[in-house]
Amino acid sequence: MGWGDLGAFGEPSKETPNLDQMASEGMLFLDFYTANPLCSPSRAALLTGRLPVRNGFYTTNAHARNAYTPQDIVGGIPDSELLLPELLKKAGYINKIIGKWHLGHRPQFHPLKHGFDEWFGSPNCHFGPFDNRALPNIPVYRNWEMIGRYYEDFKIDLKTGEANLTQVYLQEALDFISKQQASKQPFFLYWAIDATHAPVYASKHFLGTSQRGLYGDAVREIDDSIGKILKHLQKLGISENTFVFFTSDNGAALISAPKQGGSNGPFLCGKQTTFEGGMRAPAIAWWPGQIPAGVVSHQLGNVMDLFTTSLSLAGLQPPSDRQIDGIDLLPAILQGKLIDRPIFYYRGDEMMAVRVGLYKAHYWTWSNSWEEYSKGIDFCPGQNVSGVTTHTQEEHTTLPLLFHLGRDPGEKYLLSFASDEYQRVMQQISFVVQQHKATMVPGVPQLNVCDQAVMNWSPPGCEKLGKCLTPPKSDPKKCFWPH
Amino acid sequence: MGWGDLGAFGEPSKETPNLDQMASEGMLFLDFYTANPLCSPSRAALLTGRLPVRNGFYTTNAHARNAYTPQDIVGGIPDSELLLPELLKKAGYINKIIGKWHLGHRPQFHPLKHGFDEWFGSPNCHFGPFDNRALPNIPVYRNWEMIGRYYEDFKIDLKTGEANLTQVYLQEALDFISKQQASKQPFFLYWAIDATHAPVYASKHFLGTSQRGLYGDAVREIDDSIGKILKHLQKLGISENTFVFFTSDNGAALISAPKQGGSNGPFLCGKQTTFEGGMRAPAIAWWPGQIPAGVVSHQLGNVMDLFTTSLSLAGLQPPSDRQIDGIDLLPAILQGKLIDRPIFYYRGDEMMAVRVGLYKAHYWTWSNSWEEYSKGIDFCPGQNVSGVTTHTQEEHTTLPLLFHLGRDPGEKYLLSFASDEYQRVMQQISFVVQQHKATMVPGVPQLNVCDQAVMNWSPPGCEKLGKCLTPPKSDPKKCFWPH
Repeated sequence: MGWGDLGAFGEPSKETPNLDQMASEGMLFLDFYTANPLCSPSRAALLTGRLPVRNGFYTTNAHARNAYTPQDIVGGIPDSELLLPELLKKAGYINKIIGKWHLGHRPQFHPLKHGFDEWFGSPNCHFGPFDNRALPNIPVYRNWEMIGRYYEDFKIDLKTGEANLTQVYLQEALDFISKQQASKQPFFLYWAIDATHAPVYASKHFLGTSQRGLYGDAVREIDDSIGKILKHLQKLGISENTFVFFTSDNGAALISAPKQGGSNGPFLCGKQTTFEGGMRAPAIAWWPGQIPAGVVSHQLGNVMDLFTTSLSLAGLQPPSDRQIDGIDLLPAILQGKLIDRPIFYYRGDEMMAVRVGLYKAHYWTWSNSWEEYSKGIDFCPGQNVSGVTTHTQEEHTTLPLLFHLGRDPGEKYLLSFASDEYQRVMQQISFVVQQHKATMVPGVPQLNVCDQAVMNWSPPGCEKLGKCLTPPKSDPKKCFWPH
Repeated sequence: MGWGDLGAFGEPSKETPNLDQMASEGMLFLDFYTANPLCSPSRAALLTGRLPVRNGFYTTNAHARNAYTPQDIVGGIPDSELLLPELLKKAGYINKIIGKWHLGHRPQFHPLKHGFDEWFGSPNCHFGPFDNRALPNIPVYRNWEMIGRYYEDFKIDLKTGEANLTQVYLQEALDFISKQQASKQPFFLYWAIDATHAPVYASKHFLGTSQRGLYGDAVREIDDSIGKILKHLQKLGISENTFVFFTSDNGAALISAPKQGGSNGPFLCGKQTTFEGGMRAPAIAWWPGQIPAGVVSHQLGNVMDLFTTSLSLAGLQPPSDRQIDGIDLLPAILQGKLIDRPIFYYRGDEMMAVRVGLYKAHYWTWSNSWEEYSKGIDFCPGQNVSGVTTHTQEEHTTLPLLFHLGRDPGEKYLLSFASDEYQRVMQQISFVVQQHKATMVPGVPQLNVCDQAVMNWSPPGCEKLGKCLTPPKSDPKKCFWPH
């Protein structure tokens, strides 16, 4: 979902009454970022509090390329990484993930091996349908075992866009919350729904209800579901003891717009890019009685902060034996403080840009290759900022492209290299970047090797369902990452 | 000001707490339009309830060109036009205009000759400073006589952007409202402030306070002033008897961005164009006790509707001897009804586009000429939709370009000419356009002739101030309108 997809963030159809109300009862973050312009790395960062380049969710197969966890990925979340649920467990939390995991699907990467107590959902994106010969359909797990596959047992109608998955995920969430409330055990719920990811879907009740087409239907169903979850917390009397945060893992995908792609508001480009449209995310914090209602924050935030902030809420310290990029946002959320911190925009192995205050400096730019662009793959449809949305990788490390995001949120007007402002600001930014790079120890890249043998041929539990498939012979190869 | 300049409409700095609160206490219009992508014609339409092509505020010097009322314009609002204050007078209203008039500056066009009882402000834009030889500085009037000139008596510091004009206009408004409340006479106040028009200005107290630079400072000052006006109405106990409407006369000017130009949110291009960015305007209706709080409306509205709606509020009928384009919005505002009506997008003498429901059909497209564009004049900076934001005037009357503004508010994805949707929708739209054109009687164009002799050399009252200048010999010429 993109920054501009919510009414509270200016979507012109204003079809998200529940999220808008959540914002009016809580805190709206206008300057909140994903850790990456793509899903898997951003989710790995959310759960580890660390940049993908540290936790291994990146590739070195080529320079500055986006990589994720398709079915043939060999890597996944390393055991050495400490995930939020692993740590929360120590404070007595029961942890559940509902929806897309996306941190690797081989046995060692299973979410229940990384701190979650329960799982309902899938290891990969809901792409398909596949033929179960060249590519198996994505399995849906309940805890340790698969209980079916997308398109076979969990229907998605690509023609109409109908699928009731968000309703299923909603019911799972409500049931889990009820159970936890009854048992009086604290809980962490990672509600990782994916209806706005292509192929976009909505259940019958929501199909055709949005001005925005199928994508809008999906947004409306998510909005409705979040309203129901918040009301459920209130009904159970635990809303004042439950911290809820809504955000996205990357900017709206414009490549699949208008039918399958959302809005990044006034920001440049979308998913896959390190322009604002690729990484600025809608974000709302909600905690009645604790967070003052209707407050807007300009705190620079990042999904990685949810790691540290959640630990702080649970009375825990983040691990001290490794670099943690997420900061504790509680002073910003509860006391309205503004914490000075930079935002780093990575694409694969490269730090493309950095934001300090209202300034953003691009050290590298590109959208995608001419070759891809000529085939109609366009991450910036209708937008073209000369020298900025480039189709070759342009290095600007000696003279970064500088924008002022307050005066120019759309990254359209370069600050003059000769200006006093440029000189003054770049001095400050250079220092921040230098510090960042000096302490950077990249993790072992997890997204370099692909192998058809590791796909979801025979997930645990397949034999009970008669759904085991025979994998091909192992043939590990360098994954090809075009963007 | 542009659609995207208000926090409530998604401006990422969210610096308009008063307008946002006005929206939360009233009705926010998401689909509200100006009558023209340029100031004078839109203002003439607001006050007459009629399209510029009817009331004469257009040019036939060239096809589809924007024209307005610079100092050397010979034309202005014709006596035959009935202005809102002329009609409200019959119901006992006292009418005041504060700020920019822009409906012609020769004696016969004076606002007090067209229904207003009081005026404080200027006849033209606050351009300058001029040398009073080739071009006189713009006068500022109090009622019938000028009381000084911009840059001479009413300072605007172009270097710092400092000018206290909004504060002066605010005080005028507060005083007028107090006076009217004391006299128990109903009033119509047209508060036509212009701080966000280049050269953008703000008073000292607001300079440097916005994340958005000088333009943002101006927006903040306007926002603050509107908050004060609304509070004043409440303090005087007349807020429940006063209808307030906030809107703009055209989209944000991107040509002067980022320092002097605002935001049109996710919409295409800006001022001067008939894309959404040129004509979709922020709009808020406020009337405590009458308009339910925090309501969002998708009623297609237009500044011309304020003419008919205001008459309706005063218990008056619009004139029946002429075509009135504005509709009475009260059913939409007070009862939440949705009135089916088209929006016509004119540029000069040409109907460029029409919106029916969520569909918009372009019959003509262009942004500006290659010649201008090559000089750096760009109404769509960073945006380029192939075949849409054209630099030649492209006719599509036989096969209009069709967009769905719900799925594609940015006008980036053409509907396929071969689709059933296109065929079905265009049949409906063609009928609407046919009806519109069949009844169209263009007015005598007022913006064709320019003459340096008619400039503000010796406005009434100049002799008292010793500020009369000698006009050159009359030399009427065709005005040159490049856009």
